[in-house]
This record gives sequence, C-alpha cells and structure tokens, in this order.
Amino acid sequence: VEELEEAIKSMRIRGAPALEVAGAFGVVLACMEKRNLLHAAKRLLKTRPTAVNLSRGIERAMNAARGGKTRDEMFELALKEAGKIMREDARRNKLIGKYGAKLLRDGDVVMTYCNAGRLACTDYGTALGVIRTAIKEGKNVKVVACETRPLLQGSRLTAWELLEEGIDVTLITDNAGPWVIRKGMVDKIVVGADRITKDAVFNKIGTYSLALAAFEHRLPFYVAAPLSTFDFGREEKDVKVEERDGDEVRYFSGIPVAPPVKVYNPAFDATPLDKVSAIITEKGVIYPPYDSWS
Amino acid sequence: VEELEEAIKSMRIRGAPALEVAGAFGVVLACMEKRNLLHAAKRLLKTRPTAVNLSRGIERAMNAARGGKTRDEMFELALKEAGKIMREDARRNKLIGKYGAKLLRDGDVVMTYCNAGRLACTDYGTALGVIRTAIKEGKNVKVVACETRPLLQGSRLTAWELLEEGIDVTLITDNAGPWVIRKGMVDKIVVGADRITKDAVFNKIGTYSLALAAFEHRLPFYVAAPLSTFDFGREEKDVKVEERDGDEVRYFSGIPVAPPVKVYNPAFDATPLDKVSAIITEKGVIYPPYDSWS
Repeated sequence: VEELEEAIKSMRIRGAPALEVAGAFGVVLACMEKRNLLHAAKRLLKTRPTAVNLSRGIERAMNAARGGKTRDEMFELALKEAGKIMREDARRNKLIGKYGAKLLRDGDVVMTYCNAGRLACTDYGTALGVIRTAIKEGKNVKVVACETRPLLQGSRLTAWELLEEGIDVTLITDNAGPWVIRKGMVDKIVVGADRITKDAVFNKIGTYSLALAAFEHRLPFYVAAPLSTFDFGREEKDVKVEERDGDEVRYFSGIPVAPPVKVYNPAFDATPLDKVSAIITEKGVIYPPYDSWS
Repeated sequence: VEELEEAIKSMRIRGAPALEVAGAFGVVLACMEKRNLLHAAKRLLKTRPTAVNLSRGIERAMNAARGGKTRDEMFELALKEAGKIMREDARRNKLIGKYGAKLLRDGDVVMTYCNAGRLACTDYGTALGVIRTAIKEGKNVKVVACETRPLLQGSRLTAWELLEEGIDVTLITDNAGPWVIRKGMVDKIVVGADRITKDAVFNKIGTYSLALAAFEHRLPFYVAAPLSTFDFGREEKDVKVEERDGDEVRYFSGIPVAPPVKVYNPAFDATPLDKVSAIITEKGVIYPPYDSWS
C-alpha cells in the first residue's frame, strides 16, 4: 500500500481514470496485507486531493469488501470489483471515443493538453481516445500537444503516445496555446478532466488558459471524461486544488533552472462550465445547460 | 560583428531596449572592422526579426556614420550616437518607472512576464523599472513572475534580478498565470514589448494568454516600453514573428525532454490593443484610443 501511495504522489501513476483503478486496487492490497481498511482508504485518499475518480475507485472497492465476512472474502470481493472497474475503464473510453469522434471532422487540427491518453487510463484514453477513434474512422485529424509544465506530460506522454501510433502531432509550449488558437492553426480543443463540479471542470493547470482563448476565438472546447469524474454535488469553491513541491519548477531533471525563489505550483485549475462547449461521456455528449444533469 | 550576431541569435543579448543599443554598437564594430556598412547592417537586422528596437538602433548609428567623410570619422560619429542611445536607455527607463509607478498602489501584487528588467536593457528595466520605482517610493509591492518557456527568462533573469534586490517575488509556471489571475492573487499585470503596431503589442510568447485572462477578470494590463518600440506605421499582419529552433523545447540543458516530435516554437505573440489598459512610455502614460497617437 505504501508503494502505491508513493507511486500516486510522485505521479508515476496519474490521470483521473488510472487513479480510479489504482484506488480500487489499493483497497485490494490493503485486504491482502491485512491492514485496517478504513485507515488505509483514508491514507490513499489523501495522496492526491483533486481528482474525484481516486475516491470513486476506493469507495467502490470498499463497498465491495464490506460484503465479505472473512478477510479472504473481503479480498476476493474487492479484487473482483477492482478488476471490473479496470475492464469498465477501457470499455467506457472506447464509448467516449465513439461519441466524441462524431464531433471531429476530416481535416481537423485538434489541440489537447497534458495527457488524457492511454497512459492516463488502463487503455485507449479519453481525449486521445476521441482522436484515435476519429482517425480509425478514416478522418484525417492532426494534433497539437502542449508540453504541460512542470512535469511535461504533454511532451513525455502525449507526444510519445501519438508518435508511436503514427498520428501527426506538433508540440508547443503551453504559453503558445492561446497564440496558436488566435492564429487559426487549430479547429477544436479536446481535454480530459479530474473533477467536474456543477459549475466548473478541474483539469491540469493551464487548461483554463486554453478555454479562455477558445472562447475568445469561438472554437469548440470539449471535455472528454467518464461519468465517474462528475461531482455535481460540489461547486468550484468546495474543491481543494493540490499544491505541489516548488522544486518541480525550480529543477529540471535535477538541474536547477531558477534561483532559490518562492514558488506557487498548483497542479490543477478550474474552468467555469460556461466556457465548455460540451462534455463527452461514455453515455453520450452532454451540452449546456449542464445544471439540468445535476 | 559576427560575434555580436551570434550573441543576439543565441539570445545572450536579448530584450528590446538592449537590442537597440546592441544594434547601434554593431554599426560601430562594422566601422572599426572596415566592413561594408550596408551589408553589415542588413546582416545584423536579420538576426532577430520581431523587436523593432534593433532596427531603430542600427538606423540611428547608420545615419550618424553617414555624416563622416573618412572611415575614422564614420567610426567616431557612430560611436558617439551608440553611446548616446546607451545613456538614453537608462534615463528613459527611469522616466518609464516614474510614470508607471503612479499606476501601482501600496499593497499591490504585480504579475510580470519574461524579463523586462535591467538585464533586458542597459539598466533599471521597463516593466521591472516601474516596480522598482514604486518600491523606492515606499509602496509595498510584491511580484509574481512567470517562468517563460522555453528559455526561462522569467526564472533565470527576472526572479534573479528581483531576489538580488530583496524584492518579494513568487515564481509560477506560465500555464498557471490565468488561474492565478482568476483566483484574485494579483492586482495588475505589467509587461514589456518588442514592437507596438497600430493594432497590437508584440511581446514574448505567452503575453497574449495573460492579457486574455486580465481582460476576463477586469484587471489592468499595462505595457511598459520606450517610444522606440512603437511602429504605428505597421499592423499586426505586417510583422514577422520569429520561429526559433524546436530543440529549445525538445531539450533542457542538453537533456532530451520530448520524443523526436515536430515542434512549433514562436518567440513572440501579438496582443490586440483593445486588451491593453495603458502603455507606459518615457513621455508619460498613453491610454486608449491608441490610434490617436499614430
């Protein structure tokens, strides 16, 4: 369990859907290691506060485990549920891809942010799943990926995933995103999400900047996320945005790139729903007004 | 002259005001080395296409040199003019500081971008000159600096300059700028400029993103620049935005941080003047409508 906690904190496991599966398997590990389940669940929950999917996965496995009478039964039931979530994830991503692909046209250039690909899920990806499906359907879709400072999920993960598959991808710095939109170099923006409250989409820091630019230039701004990302009982102000260590910004591969200065390093931002054109889920595409869905 | 060209291209000399002075001294060097002046001026001009100040400095020194009959006279005249520009720069920055400081209040948190400090000029700085003067006048002003990918002028230069002087500064990634504005963590934005046409301000890539967020949240967005940055005879569409080598994004201190992917790496963006609250010059503060100034 400690190893899993460390892997989540250091972001070797990251991406909202992957965290859902990891949370469930964390409960399985806690059963296996004969831990106090409530205590283990609380510790897992604290590793990263913003993505709601982590808590969803933990809750589902905990509820399953509670059905068991013996330790062994609890383990078996949690394991079954975690496996189910894992298989569900790949399936729902393909559905997100199917519904989302209808929003993309032949010839579109799509901007994406951070990594909402298979490396953020068990397989296929949410935002990248939409792009993958469109391409599989024969549409010529090109991608612009933003590098996503400080940890560069856009260059290290998204560009890698797409290159590996032979999908046309161009990398830009995050600060160039709004300019690329202003220049008319992209047609649509598709990103993932870590939590969708009744008024805002929490996603990797920098998402809000692209949403503002898309709104200014009247480009569609789509969010692709499974329903487990929805948390319509909460508002933007109720959600804790994780602040990470300033050394992520001060150092680069261990090399100092800044003087010993104070750093504010939020991991996420919130984009108000009035800047979101549609949300692509495994049940279909949701359009505004979103409050009718809550 | 070749050494100077290399220093400008590699950005060891950068910042619009510093480029103005460097351009003038480039003509002095060409006189000294008995070069074909027109040819040397053209080559210097080509090193970086976006900042208009470089061409202003070259032009002024060329015009001065033309007054000489012998090589020695030309050298003397160019040198005199270059020295004059150099002394003017520090003086006009102090005036920019004086006028701009009136726009800052005690307790303000000011966001700045890239480096418009003394490391971008001969001394004192434009945007940072405004902050310096306000602090000298006894106002408690704090700074938020954006790191400015890919070359990190914000962390390597701005944070360093301010720390050295004991000014309170917090570093953030560029993509966090709009979120920090949304969260109400800053009161004003002050940036420099590389060229101001009759419809837009060209400045370091990423400036536009902050201008959009400032506009959305009704924060003042100020540009601090000497009059030599103005180019009201041109429009946004007439200006060439420099595209730099993709390896600036793919590598970090020589370490690869991205797969061998296509990169689009523009050095500047353009912010339409309707998103600029005021321009601070050495002659005073200019407010909209700016076209009355052209």
